[in-house]
Amino acid sequence: MRITALAGGIGGARFLRGLLHHLGTSGQLPGDGSGDGVGDEITVIGNTADDVTLHGLRVCPDLDTVMYTLGGGIHEGQGWGRSGETFSIAEELRAYGSGPDWFTLGDRDLATHIVRTRLLGQGHTLSEVTAALCARWQPGVRLLPMSDDRVETHVVLADPEHPGEDGAPGERAVHFQEWWVRLHAAVPARRILAVGVEQARPAPGVLEAIAGADVILLPPSNPVVSIGTILGVPGIRDALGDTAAPVVGVSPIVGGAPVRGMADACLTAIGVETSAAAVAGLYADFLDGWLVDQADDDVADSASVTAAVRARPLLMTDIDAAAAIAGAALELAEELRTSRIGHHGRR
Amino acid sequence: MRITALAGGIGGARFLRGLLHHLGTSGQLPGDGSGDGVGDEITVIGNTADDVTLHGLRVCPDLDTVMYTLGGGIHEGQGWGRSGETFSIAEELRAYGSGPDWFTLGDRDLATHIVRTRLLGQGHTLSEVTAALCARWQPGVRLLPMSDDRVETHVVLADPEHPGEDGAPGERAVHFQEWWVRLHAAVPARRILAVGVEQARPAPGVLEAIAGADVILLPPSNPVVSIGTILGVPGIRDALGDTAAPVVGVSPIVGGAPVRGMADACLTAIGVETSAAAVAGLYADFLDGWLVDQADDDVADSASVTAAVRARPLLMTDIDAAAAIAGAALELAEELRTSRIGHHGRR
Repeated sequence: MRITALAGGIGGARFLRGLLHHLGTSGQLPGDGSGDGVGDEITVIGNTADDVTLHGLRVCPDLDTVMYTLGGGIHEGQGWGRSGETFSIAEELRAYGSGPDWFTLGDRDLATHIVRTRLLGQGHTLSEVTAALCARWQPGVRLLPMSDDRVETHVVLADPEHPGEDGAPGERAVHFQEWWVRLHAAVPARRILAVGVEQARPAPGVLEAIAGADVILLPPSNPVVSIGTILGVPGIRDALGDTAAPVVGVSPIVGGAPVRGMADACLTAIGVETSAAAVAGLYADFLDGWLVDQADDDVADSASVTAAVRARPLLMTDIDAAAAIAGAALELAEELRTSRIGHHGRR
Repeated sequence: MRITALAGGIGGARFLRGLLHHLGTSGQLPGDGSGDGVGDEITVIGNTADDVTLHGLRVCPDLDTVMYTLGGGIHEGQGWGRSGETFSIAEELRAYGSGPDWFTLGDRDLATHIVRTRLLGQGHTLSEVTAALCARWQPGVRLLPMSDDRVETHVVLADPEHPGEDGAPGERAVHFQEWWVRLHAAVPARRILAVGVEQARPAPGVLEAIAGADVILLPPSNPVVSIGTILGVPGIRDALGDTAAPVVGVSPIVGGAPVRGMADACLTAIGVETSAAAVAGLYADFLDGWLVDQADDDVADSASVTAAVRARPLLMTDIDAAAAIAGAALELAEELRTSRIGHHGRR
């Protein structure tokens, strides 16, 4: 089975690990003889709009979280960064007064960024670099960046100290990571911009992986700054509308709140309610199946949700729980595929 | 007193630390009220031809060894690298198969290279970057790179496997660090090239520090790949010949062998005997005083040595020993300055 998933960071990575566990491949490369022999082929299209250059090094938080999580290198407790991490470099950078000091990079994690930055500097694309890094981690999926072109999410905040010329309220834009990590998304975002997204081209293999899939999955990633920016790359959203494969998503919102992360702050910024129904509405033009938590089983009654809705526990408390959720998503997809009920929002 | 010194790595750094100790400033900035109040001003012109780009990061081994040694951050046992070092990144780079694997960089040391590479990438000169790094370490001297232009020592080795077109013995060139660190200088060097040195300009302040000095010191650094490359930067050698200050050197050769390092392999490569007298000969056009070990007190009788020679123990076994050697060098300089005997090789 050819499965293609769109993914952000922690939520996406944990869902994907559950998916691999469910498929019985558990980090082994599918179809390489070590798995179940069925030869499932999983392609992950990762968000790169969170990427940031820190200390001159290119950091790709979402790609790395997927890679580390599936490759067995993740810091399990925090969900991002490396296990067995040390922080000598961060200590030294502080001693040099070399900022920013609000984004602490561990030594082991930094090695990834050093290798990436060197390869990018030699002219390799981010796709090529990601493949080179994955050659070590063997995540068991084909991990593709959404684009090899640079897209960066910036967040526009109110800046009362610097009003506009006509006395209008002032604004300033910060990199998404500054808003997310330094400000904890606690300062309201007026707008969220994916800088460069209009000019970005899908990375090699992305559109093909959507067109040629048997199933498309949307893990419970942030609908605005993860899935949303991937959908913003010209061609990707259309490909999801055109593919013959059923598209099944897992709601990142449970009972009106994000399962983790601060997706509510992002949804509020784009004027969308923090609810499983409202998020489904963001995907209305291509979504066929929508997995929601039991707390949200009334979503099926929502007029705005045209996808087939199934309710089940959605908390990924451990790998088995994540595997069960992934299994339920695949089951829904299979149901949609064979019954041909509902395709792309046309129930 | 304005003292200007040329310096390579470990030998130079330990001599300079002894000099500061002798002057009673011991790492405090001279003339800042915390020292002896006399306001000695020490400028160090550091060799940069050992510099190498590793993992995309610019490494300046000699500048860093001086900076760490005088700033209290050196790994005392090995004489280079950082104290309290960790090696997470090196371990990760190996796991990525990201070479070279023969040059292990510690995490703390890497932070210096990350900061340097970022600043260079932003368009700062190496002089500016070195000053920025020294702002943290407060080495108590003004540390100047010999040049802001890139000069790299390459070593030509025999390469029998790839003979020339006419069957002539083949040759290959490797970066100095590869010869020194990976091959331990055990493979004979046919030639040693300072690539780019002809086009290099002395860094800002270098010529002024030589012209305006009261004393010029040559620590016991490698006469070929440290002092030699500094002298190769157009203008520096002439400035040493022209300065009114006495130039006093400390022999890096004791009893026909290098005190440390593999200077003999370098001297052999340029066809010069490994002796205190022969090294003095390399400096003949500007050297006024030459401090040799007691084992070499016959150097004074050598017709090729025109500088004033003094013999004393030259092993820098500890800081006090290094301080005594530095004191003897200053004493010889003072003697030369007041008596006006001998100036620039004209005894």
